[in-house]
Amino acid sequence: MFADVVLGIEGRQFEEHLDSYKEAHHKTLDTDMDADDWKALVDIYKDLVNFPQDPAVQLRQAIEAVFLSWNTPRAIVYREMHNIPETIGTAVCVQAMVFGNFGDDSGSGVAFTRNPSTGENHFFGEFLVNAAGEDVVSGVRTPRPISEMEEKMPLMYKQLFETQQRLEQHYRDMQDLEFTIQEGKFYMLQTRSGKRTGRASVKIAVEMVAEGLIDEKEALLRVSPEHVEAFLHPMIDPDARRDIVASGLPASPGGATGQVVFSANEAVKVAADGTPVILVRRETTPEDIHGMKVAQGILTELGGMTSHAAVVARGMGVCAITGCGSLTIDYEKGTVNTADGISFKRADIITLDGSTGDVMLGDIPKTEASSSDDFQTLLSWADKYRRLKVRANAETREDAIKARELGAEGIGLCRTEHMFFAADRIDSMRGMILAESKEERQTYLDKLFHFQKADMKDLFEVMHDLPVTIRLLDPPLHEFLPQSEEDIQALAASIDKSADSIREMTRNLHEVNPMLGFRGCRLSVVHPEITEMQVEAIISAAIEATEEGFNPHPEIMIPLVVNVREIRFITEIIERGIRKAMAEKQISIPYKIGTMMETPRACLGASRLAPAVEFMSFGTNDLTQMTYGFSRDDVGKFIPDYLDRKLVEYDPFITLDQRAVGRLMKIAIAESKDRKKGIKYGICGEHGGDPVSIQFCHEIGLDYVSCSPYRVPVARIAAAQANVSGDVPD
Amino acid sequence: MFADVVLGIEGRQFEEHLDSYKEAHHKTLDTDMDADDWKALVDIYKDLVNFPQDPAVQLRQAIEAVFLSWNTPRAIVYREMHNIPETIGTAVCVQAMVFGNFGDDSGSGVAFTRNPSTGENHFFGEFLVNAAGEDVVSGVRTPRPISEMEEKMPLMYKQLFETQQRLEQHYRDMQDLEFTIQEGKFYMLQTRSGKRTGRASVKIAVEMVAEGLIDEKEALLRVSPEHVEAFLHPMIDPDARRDIVASGLPASPGGATGQVVFSANEAVKVAADGTPVILVRRETTPEDIHGMKVAQGILTELGGMTSHAAVVARGMGVCAITGCGSLTIDYEKGTVNTADGISFKRADIITLDGSTGDVMLGDIPKTEASSSDDFQTLLSWADKYRRLKVRANAETREDAIKARELGAEGIGLCRTEHMFFAADRIDSMRGMILAESKEERQTYLDKLFHFQKADMKDLFEVMHDLPVTIRLLDPPLHEFLPQSEEDIQALAASIDKSADSIREMTRNLHEVNPMLGFRGCRLSVVHPEITEMQVEAIISAAIEATEEGFNPHPEIMIPLVVNVREIRFITEIIERGIRKAMAEKQISIPYKIGTMMETPRACLGASRLAPAVEFMSFGTNDLTQMTYGFSRDDVGKFIPDYLDRKLVEYDPFITLDQRAVGRLMKIAIAESKDRKKGIKYGICGEHGGDPVSIQFCHEIGLDYVSCSPYRVPVARIAAAQANVSGDVPD
Repeated sequence: MFADVVLGIEGRQFEEHLDSYKEAHHKTLDTDMDADDWKALVDIYKDLVNFPQDPAVQLRQAIEAVFLSWNTPRAIVYREMHNIPETIGTAVCVQAMVFGNFGDDSGSGVAFTRNPSTGENHFFGEFLVNAAGEDVVSGVRTPRPISEMEEKMPLMYKQLFETQQRLEQHYRDMQDLEFTIQEGKFYMLQTRSGKRTGRASVKIAVEMVAEGLIDEKEALLRVSPEHVEAFLHPMIDPDARRDIVASGLPASPGGATGQVVFSANEAVKVAADGTPVILVRRETTPEDIHGMKVAQGILTELGGMTSHAAVVARGMGVCAITGCGSLTIDYEKGTVNTADGISFKRADIITLDGSTGDVMLGDIPKTEASSSDDFQTLLSWADKYRRLKVRANAETREDAIKARELGAEGIGLCRTEHMFFAADRIDSMRGMILAESKEERQTYLDKLFHFQKADMKDLFEVMHDLPVTIRLLDPPLHEFLPQSEEDIQALAASIDKSADSIREMTRNLHEVNPMLGFRGCRLSVVHPEITEMQVEAIISAAIEATEEGFNPHPEIMIPLVVNVREIRFITEIIERGIRKAMAEKQISIPYKIGTMMETPRACLGASRLAPAVEFMSFGTNDLTQMTYGFSRDDVGKFIPDYLDRKLVEYDPFITLDQRAVGRLMKIAIAESKDRKKGIKYGICGEHGGDPVSIQFCHEIGLDYVSCSPYRVPVARIAAAQANVSGDVPD
Repeated sequence: MFADVVLGIEGRQFEEHLDSYKEAHHKTLDTDMDADDWKALVDIYKDLVNFPQDPAVQLRQAIEAVFLSWNTPRAIVYREMHNIPETIGTAVCVQAMVFGNFGDDSGSGVAFTRNPSTGENHFFGEFLVNAAGEDVVSGVRTPRPISEMEEKMPLMYKQLFETQQRLEQHYRDMQDLEFTIQEGKFYMLQTRSGKRTGRASVKIAVEMVAEGLIDEKEALLRVSPEHVEAFLHPMIDPDARRDIVASGLPASPGGATGQVVFSANEAVKVAADGTPVILVRRETTPEDIHGMKVAQGILTELGGMTSHAAVVARGMGVCAITGCGSLTIDYEKGTVNTADGISFKRADIITLDGSTGDVMLGDIPKTEASSSDDFQTLLSWADKYRRLKVRANAETREDAIKARELGAEGIGLCRTEHMFFAADRIDSMRGMILAESKEERQTYLDKLFHFQKADMKDLFEVMHDLPVTIRLLDPPLHEFLPQSEEDIQALAASIDKSADSIREMTRNLHEVNPMLGFRGCRLSVVHPEITEMQVEAIISAAIEATEEGFNPHPEIMIPLVVNVREIRFITEIIERGIRKAMAEKQISIPYKIGTMMETPRACLGASRLAPAVEFMSFGTNDLTQMTYGFSRDDVGKFIPDYLDRKLVEYDPFITLDQRAVGRLMKIAIAESKDRKKGIKYGICGEHGGDPVSIQFCHEIGLDYVSCSPYRVPVARIAAAQANVSGDVPD
C-alpha cells in the first residue's frame, strides 16, 4: 500500500526484481535467500524508491498511504459497486511488532474457538515454538496441534484459553485468532469471526442459542443461505486438491463425479447398471430430459444461469455447470478439448463442482448430503420469523412432493409446457401444431386434455390446501417441433403427415428472436382453443380432486402480457373454459386469475392491469432479458468479459438488478396496489431462490417467492434473514 | 343506432331479413324492391321490434338512443384508445326532413368550395333535378356538373354560390357541402371541411394565406404530414380502380409498377435495359442491397415496419410493402400464391401501393412526384415555426446529398455497418471476423480503415458545417458471414480459409436471440480493436476534410448501453483512437461522444449515464422491441390478430407507444438533464419520421429527430405543427 500510493511504484515491480535476483543467483524459494541476498536486493529496491530512513517519517508516510488509498481508482469502483458512501473514510491501525522467533520461550499460533469444519464446541488450533506467524501458515514448517501447547507452555496456554473464551463471549461468535509469544509474554495479534463450513455454521448457530450466547434471530443471520447447500447436495470436500481444467457458470450447486457421456440416450444406457454419468452437451433442450434425469451432473458449453440446462438441473437438484465456453466438444469423436490444451473423452471420469463452476479430472472427494436436527431447528426458526411465503416451481408429482417436503407453501410456477415434452405427449402436441383443420386440431387437443388433467390432478393432490399457480402455454410452438431428419421422419409416420409438410411448418414457425416472438399470451390470442383446453383440464382436475376430498387452489397465470386488453381478452376465454368444465358438476372451485409481469411494459402499465387480475407474479428472467437486452442463451459470449472488466458487478440472471429491473418492480407495485384490493405479488424467476434478491423482494413488499424445490430451504432462511435483519444489532 | 341500443336488436338482423326477402322474391338490388315489397318487409320488421307509432315517442326514443350510445362497449373502448374523457358526453342534432324529389322545382347536390383534387380555387360539385341526396351519391343516376345548375335554376344557384362563399369565409377552410331544393326553396343540409388530395391540401393552405383567410401557422396545421408524400413519390391515383390481391404493411410510401423478380441478381439483370421491376422476397438481407437499388418497389412476405426491407426502402425512397403474410412465395417455381387463391409469377406486372400496403395485378395509374412552389413555401414556413431540428439517417454520399436537399440539418444516424456490406468490403469484414491471430485481424482492419475513412469523408463534405452522428458497429458479427454453400466456398477461396473453418465460426457465432445478443457496444468491449479502427477512420477523415476547407462535426455514438461503465470503458478506447489519429497532425477536430438510449435499463439509469456523455439519442426501434418483448422481425405472426381484435391500437413500431416507451424516454430526460450541462437529446428510430411521434418528441423536449431522407420534409412539417398547435384556435 505504501509503495503503491505514496511512491507511485507498483508492488509487482518489487516482485519482479526479487524473481530476477533469484533466477540470477539460482535460488528457488524465498527461504533459499540468505541475509546477504536480501541485503543486495534491498540495495536494488533503494534505487527504485527514495526510502525514508527516519522511522517516524516511515510511519507517517505509511499512515498517509493508507488514508490516500481511499481514493485509488480501484477503491472508487469498489465503493460504487457496493454503494459505500464516499464520506465514511477509512481507519489506520498501528501496532507494535512482536516476535515469536526470539527463542524457545517464544512462539506463534492460529486457533479457532470451535471446530470450523464440524462446528463442535472444542478449542482448535495449531502452533509452533520459536517461530513467526508466517512460519505457522506458510507450510514451511509443520505446526503442532494446540493441545501440545498445554504441555509445553502451560501458563501461556492458560492465557490463550481464557482469552479465546472471553473473545467468543464478547463477540458472541466463533473466533479465528492469531497470537504470538515473545520471551514468555503472550500477545493477541488479531481476532475475527472464523470462516466455517456449511454444516459447522448451522451447528454453531443452533448451539449458541442453547448456550444463551445469541437469540434465534441472530442465529438465523449467522448462517449464510449458501451454507444450507451442504445439507441438500453432496459437496466437494473443501480440503480436497482440485486440478481445475475448465470453469463455467455455477448453475446448480453440489459436487458430482461420473463417466463422460455425450447424449441423453447414451446417459440412459450407461447409467442403466448404476454407473454414475456426467452428461456433457453443447446445450440441452427439452428432448434431453430423460438423460438429465439419470445423470449425476450436467456440463454444457453454452447457456447462462437461466438456460434450459441450468433451470432443469436446479429443479432436479442435480449438479450442473453451464456456459463453459472454453470447452470444444466433438460429439463425433467423443472428445472434449479445453482452452488450455487438456482433453478428456467418452467414459473418462470427471468431477463437477456446481457451486463454483469448476471442472476437474478424476474423482474428487465429496461430503455427503444429509439433514440434521440442528438444520431442522434452524429452518423452524426461519419459518417462525419470516413474512415472505416460499413456493416452489414444479410440474411433476415427484417435484411437488420434494418441494412440500422441503417446506414449500404451494407451487408458484407450474410451466404447463413441460408436461407436453414427455415422450408419450410430444407427438400429440406436434400433431396439434401441425393440424390443418379445426377438427384435426381438436382431436389432438382432446388427447392433450387428458394428459394435462391427470398431471394437474397430481399436483392438486400433493398441494392439498395450498395454491398452485399454473402458467398457460408459454414457449414458441416451434420449440416443440422435431429438428433432426430422423425425428422428422418418425413424426411423419406417427401422425400421418408428409415430412415435407412438417419441414414447411417448421419453416413457417421459424423466428429470428423467439424470446421476443410468438409466445406467451400471444399464443392464447391467436389460438384460443389451446387455452380453452388447458383451462378445462385444470378445472376438471380440480373438480375431481375436490370430489376425492382434496382442497385445490388453482391460480391461472397469463404470461408475457403487455397491456390490459390481452388480459381481458384471455380472461374471457379462461372463464368460458371454467364455465364449460363446471357446467356438468355442481361443485364451485375457488380459482384466481393473474398475470406474469415480465415485460417492461407490463410493469410500467401495472396501474391499468391491476383491476383485471388477482395476482401479479414477476417473471424476472424475462424481465431481466428485456430490461438489459441480454438473451440468457447468448450472454455467454460477452458476460465473461463484462465480469472480468467489472463492467457488470454480477450476472443479473443470478442476482436481481435492483437499479432497473427492481425499479420496474417497485413502479409496478406502487402503481397497482391501491387499484385492486387484496392483490398478491410474487416472483417466479430464478431470482426467487437467490438470497440477495429475496432480501429485495421482502423489502419491496412481495407476498411470496417461488423457486426450485431444492432452493426452498435456502429461500426460507433468506426470507427470515430479510425480516429479522433490522432487529439484530450489527 | 335506435335499434342497436334502445331495443337491443342489432342492425344486421334487419339486413339479414332484407337479404332473405330479396332472395325469396328474386330481387337483386334494393332498387328492384317495389313499394309492396317494402311494406311486406316492414311487417316482418315490426315482428322484431315493438315500434312506437306516435312520432313524438319515436323522436324521443331516437334522441335517447343516441345519448345511450355513449356507453356501448364499442364506444367505451374507442374513448379508452383515444384518451377521450368519459365526462364530455355527446350531442344530438334534430333536423326537419326536406325532399329534393318533389318535382322539377326540387333537386339535390353535393359540392366543394374548391377543387378537392387539384386545390384550384374554383367552385366544384354535382347536382340532380327532382332527386334525393341519396340519388346523387349512390351512382343510380348520373349527376350533372354544378355549372349546369346556374342555367337551369339560376336563383337557387345564386343562393348556393353565395352560401358556399360565406361558409368558406366563416370556417376558413375548403367546405364539403350537401344541399336540397324543395319546391323552389333552398336548404343547406350539411357543411364540413372537405377531404382533399395531398397536392390540393398544400395549394389550398398556401393560397388561403395569400387570401388573408388564415395565417401561416394555421396553414401548417391544415396539411397532413402524409399529404407531403405526394410531392416526394409517385402515388397511386386515388380514383383508379384497385383490385387488391393481397395486403401487407405500408412500409415505404408511394406507388410502383413493374415485372416480378425473385432475387437481387435477377432484379439487376432485368432492370439493366430500364425495365421496371418489383423485387419479391420472403425477406431481404444486406446481401440484397444491389437488387433493392434498381427495383421500383419491394414486396416481402415477412418482416415488420422496421424490418431490413422497410428501413432500407424508406432510406432509398423506394416503395415497399412488408409482412405480406398471405403470400406464399416459391422461388424455385417462380410463383406467388395469395391466401385467396390468386397467383402471379415471374415477369408478371404488379403494382404496389406502399402508402396503404395493397398489392394489385397489372399497371395502376399513378400521379407524378414533383415539388411545387406552394410546397416550398409551406416548407419554409415549417422551418420558421419549428423548434425541433430535423436530421437524416444516412450512410452514403448519395443519401446525404438527398437528405440535405430535402432540408436535413445533419445526420442523426450513420450506421457504420452498412458501409461494410458492399461487395468490395464484405470480404475484408469477413476476413476480420474469421481472423485467427491478432496480426491477421489487423491486416483486415487496415483495409476496412481505408474504406471507412473514405466513406466518412464523403459524409463530412456533404454535411459541411452540420453534425454527423456516427454509430459504432452495431449488428451481431454473424450477420456478416455467408450463409449459402456457394458463398462460403467463394469466401474460402478469397480469404484463404477452409470452408470448414468458416462453418465452424458461423456455428460459434450463432445466437438464439441475436437482437439481445453479442452486438452493440458489447462488440467494443470484447473487440476494442474494431472500435479503435472505426474511431481512427472517423477522425482521420474529419482531419482531411478540415484540411480541404470543410467544417466537420463528428458525433460518435455508442450503441446498446446498459450502464455507465460501458460508456467509460469505450470512451477510453475512443479517446485513444482520437489521440492516435490527431497525433500526426496539428489540427484539433471538435467532436462529441454520446450514447444511444435503446435498452430500458439505459433509460432507467440515465442519471448515471449523463455525466459521461454529451448527447443521448433514443433508439426507439430497439427500445420498443425490449419494452414490449416484440421482435420486429417476428411480430408479423401475431400483430395482425392483435390489430384485428383491437388488442393494440396501432403497431408500436410505426407510432411510438407513449405509455411505456415514451414514459421511459421521459424518465431518462427528467433524470439526466440536470446532471449534464448542454446535453442534447435526439431520436433516431423509425419513429423520428412519424408525425404523431414527432409531436410527442417535441413535447418531451428532444432537440432533434432523425429519419430517412425522404421523411425529412414530413418531419419538418410535423415538427412545426407540434410547435404551433397551441397557438391556433381550434
